[in-house]
Amino acid sequence: MTHEELFQHILKKRSYLCVGLDTDFTKIPVHLLDQEDPVFEFNKQIIDATADYCVAYKPNTAFYESLGVKGWGSLQKTIDYLNHNYPEHFTIADAKRGDIGNTSAMYAKAFFQSMNFDSITVAPYMGSDSVKPFLEYKNKWVILLALTSNQGSSDFEELTIHRKSGGFNAENVSHKHLYEMVLEKSQAWASHEQMMYVTGATKATEFEKIRKIVPNHFLLVPGVGAQGGSLEDVSKYGMNKTCGLLVNSSRSIIYASNKTDFATAAQLEAKNIQTQMSHFLKTILLK
Amino acid sequence: MTHEELFQHILKKRSYLCVGLDTDFTKIPVHLLDQEDPVFEFNKQIIDATADYCVAYKPNTAFYESLGVKGWGSLQKTIDYLNHNYPEHFTIADAKRGDIGNTSAMYAKAFFQSMNFDSITVAPYMGSDSVKPFLEYKNKWVILLALTSNQGSSDFEELTIHRKSGGFNAENVSHKHLYEMVLEKSQAWASHEQMMYVTGATKATEFEKIRKIVPNHFLLVPGVGAQGGSLEDVSKYGMNKTCGLLVNSSRSIIYASNKTDFATAAQLEAKNIQTQMSHFLKTILLK
Repeated sequence: MTHEELFQHILKKRSYLCVGLDTDFTKIPVHLLDQEDPVFEFNKQIIDATADYCVAYKPNTAFYESLGVKGWGSLQKTIDYLNHNYPEHFTIADAKRGDIGNTSAMYAKAFFQSMNFDSITVAPYMGSDSVKPFLEYKNKWVILLALTSNQGSSDFEELTIHRKSGGFNAENVSHKHLYEMVLEKSQAWASHEQMMYVTGATKATEFEKIRKIVPNHFLLVPGVGAQGGSLEDVSKYGMNKTCGLLVNSSRSIIYASNKTDFATAAQLEAKNIQTQMSHFLKTILLK
Repeated sequence: MTHEELFQHILKKRSYLCVGLDTDFTKIPVHLLDQEDPVFEFNKQIIDATADYCVAYKPNTAFYESLGVKGWGSLQKTIDYLNHNYPEHFTIADAKRGDIGNTSAMYAKAFFQSMNFDSITVAPYMGSDSVKPFLEYKNKWVILLALTSNQGSSDFEELTIHRKSGGFNAENVSHKHLYEMVLEKSQAWASHEQMMYVTGATKATEFEKIRKIVPNHFLLVPGVGAQGGSLEDVSKYGMNKTCGLLVNSSRSIIYASNKTDFATAAQLEAKNIQTQMSHFLKTILLK
């Protein structure tokens, strides 16, 4: 999928909502447990109920891996279902992978070739050659972790980097956060046509700073909803001229109810968020 | 497995070799391709041939994921085979995972509970709460990425961190590499009884510095062999009083031959490395 196609889908749906399919087996409504594959059945109903109100789906691989071979099968069925029935929707493998070159190439094969996801989240710690193999697939995306929404983001992501520039005797010393260095350096690896960034919504005040470094990129924003971020702040400070935001909500949508009405409850919650997003698109993007 | 049990196994085998099961389907000898599960059959024969000369096995999950559901099945069979037949061997899921707390807990469940690996490699970028869920399992280990052996390690791992200590008006400014900060900070999360570090063998000169920060921890050292590190340097600068090293070799062992003699060739290569290790244990550890 191209940047422009994603933007057009956002305008059409008047939504930049991404639904996180973090499907925890222990939270699936009991009436689904006698199905052959309860996880897939749950996902299928959530997808059908929310597709009109979102533009992206993001299964987090951890929830599937925790169920072993069967879980991996549920993930495969979920992405196949999305690709077959909702090809307009942007799909994100939230896998946070990253390894040396030949190994990252294997992960790229797993998620882009075998499963045909549009994108994958990648951890930047190991640097350029751990990311580049993912960029060899046309119209596939790397979503690089920059500033995450968890408490531990202060441990390393927000450390201050000391840099001298201009050669040995230079007096130009600059101080930047590690996550800002990730945003800066990685722009040499791919443009906003193939790279997005994870930027946590609990730090809306940081968005202005982030937008100075990456004005044109899409940002995947977790942490709205259960993790406590404000959709208004994110939209106000993060939106650019092609929207540039995918705001994720997982638990508050998919677990809106744990009874037989779970899909309807998820739909209501997604619709509620979409209504707010439609408002922000009108007042910020189209003003 | 405890630190002491691993050390005793090293003394018994006179080896600190870890065999990396990075089993690439395209490199499996052709005569195995008519087996029901060629990847597992390859691993089984490699394991049986090398078990006398090594103390650990490390499948890299990327190679299995690239084959989809069937690959995940081969990984499950491989760890089951190891746990059943070689319980003394330390097993490492080289998965480089790491996510927000509730998600890392799912990865911990996948690798420690469903699969029963002894350890998992974890990426530090997202900080403490992305690592801690893995530490809730008794006698299971986190192997945290510190300094990796790839070229991209210079992008972020070797950046200089600027730190003021001692309060607002302090003049104490220190400069450390990011990977040194990872080593330092993470020691507050677990002791050398539950934490190891990945430190790349292509930087043997860095080992002295690393050993000042983590004198008692085991270090998992990739990059000896195909990636070009020197076993002698690693042993000289990295060994501590309980050995403290697991040196990994993948490609140079498992692809020593691509013909019907692949297992014998792997055995010879493993035995050759074990002979060198036995010498270094005698001259460095037991001197």
